[in-house]
Amino acid sequence: MRYEESVIEGRNAVLEAFRSGKTIDRLFLLKGCQDGPVSSIARMARKQDTLIQYVPKIRLDQLSETGKHQGVVAYAAAYEYASVEDMLAMAGKKGEPPFLFLLDGIEDPHNLGAIIRTANQAGAHGVIIPKRRAAGLTAVVARASAGALNYTPVAKVTNLTAVMEELKKKGMWFVCADMGGTLMYDLDLTGPLGVIIGNEGEGVGRLVKERCDMAAAIPMKGDVDSLNASVAAGVLAYEVLRQRMGK
Amino acid sequence: MRYEESVIEGRNAVLEAFRSGKTIDRLFLLKGCQDGPVSSIARMARKQDTLIQYVPKIRLDQLSETGKHQGVVAYAAAYEYASVEDMLAMAGKKGEPPFLFLLDGIEDPHNLGAIIRTANQAGAHGVIIPKRRAAGLTAVVARASAGALNYTPVAKVTNLTAVMEELKKKGMWFVCADMGGTLMYDLDLTGPLGVIIGNEGEGVGRLVKERCDMAAAIPMKGDVDSLNASVAAGVLAYEVLRQRMGK
Repeated sequence: MRYEESVIEGRNAVLEAFRSGKTIDRLFLLKGCQDGPVSSIARMARKQDTLIQYVPKIRLDQLSETGKHQGVVAYAAAYEYASVEDMLAMAGKKGEPPFLFLLDGIEDPHNLGAIIRTANQAGAHGVIIPKRRAAGLTAVVARASAGALNYTPVAKVTNLTAVMEELKKKGMWFVCADMGGTLMYDLDLTGPLGVIIGNEGEGVGRLVKERCDMAAAIPMKGDVDSLNASVAAGVLAYEVLRQRMGK
Repeated sequence: MRYEESVIEGRNAVLEAFRSGKTIDRLFLLKGCQDGPVSSIARMARKQDTLIQYVPKIRLDQLSETGKHQGVVAYAAAYEYASVEDMLAMAGKKGEPPFLFLLDGIEDPHNLGAIIRTANQAGAHGVIIPKRRAAGLTAVVARASAGALNYTPVAKVTNLTAVMEELKKKGMWFVCADMGGTLMYDLDLTGPLGVIIGNEGEGVGRLVKERCDMAAAIPMKGDVDSLNASVAAGVLAYEVLRQRMGK
């Protein structure tokens, strides 16, 4: 497991990184540049669902550490991603019903790190994040996780809803936080469970919500709209744990 | 209630701010400068327990918005602070046992904002912060609170332990998060209660801990040390709320 976010620069280096199967979190390409090598890189990136941003030269110069980017800068994941199967295997090994987090587009790396830390402490077996519109496993996330990234596996998937469908076939249930749902204390959260946490601004997306078996309402006594995403994840995680402990 | 953090610069302006009773969160003075007016300002600041930092001229130039700081820059609170009495009165008006948060040195403004937001949603009547070693009510805190700062009163006190002693005489109990304590589900958290949240790095201070009536353990199934401070506050807050709802 590597600890630093790595910046890969230059056409050959980035092409090589894609060919070797390295996970590239973000790819920056020079705006307007469409020659052969750059088009190949863009094609490989799209195949892997890597987020591509077309930016002006001045931005690439800022991102570049060597100054020799040739119009291409890639951010590789600081940590290795795990697979969803690894997580289910871990739950099986521990003899526990699977307990996973699915983050529907958490964008703030501090929130992502705090949620991975919470998942670890609440006894979850893994965290699943989508490839698009989401923070990846950067050095900031690693720090915010306070080391939990070393223990709690994180998987990055192309399509959250497809993963949900697959896991449902294996007997898992899904719950999302939703103010209009059933009070979380009145739900049975003890079985094989995936907890969905929505994006900071927009909450859980429609397609994901439609695939949820339960909507859990966290009681809100206050005057504002919602809780911070990592706090909401913590409150839900600990309700699952409380029920599993039989308390 | 004002919404912007205000920077006050120059000797007379800062002296005047102290004289008018404005709450100054942080005071920056030119290192080595000890003439009459600056000494007077430092004296008034100490009387109010304002955090004083002695910094080089280049730092003051950076902080200054006008460029005319004369060796003195002060940050005034962006929001008005409330009193602890206001909070008790609010609880009384609602016919609820008081439920307060006491933050023993939360330094990260995002954590402070998230905790104020959580306090609001969990139905707490206020948040008490110390004057020293702690984030004040800056614009960043206001944003992180997502508007909760408009509804949940925050008091800033010189001495947390003195406030605890006073509130104990009024029948309040205090609980702090402590891994060595009693499992939080097994404590009675339904009475008039102050919940203590410790500093991000060091946890709850010894003097504060000694004055707590209960130590609540949040179950930790994981491999890392603790939870993020605002997540821990959220988990404890919602355990209080769950018990109060009779769930």
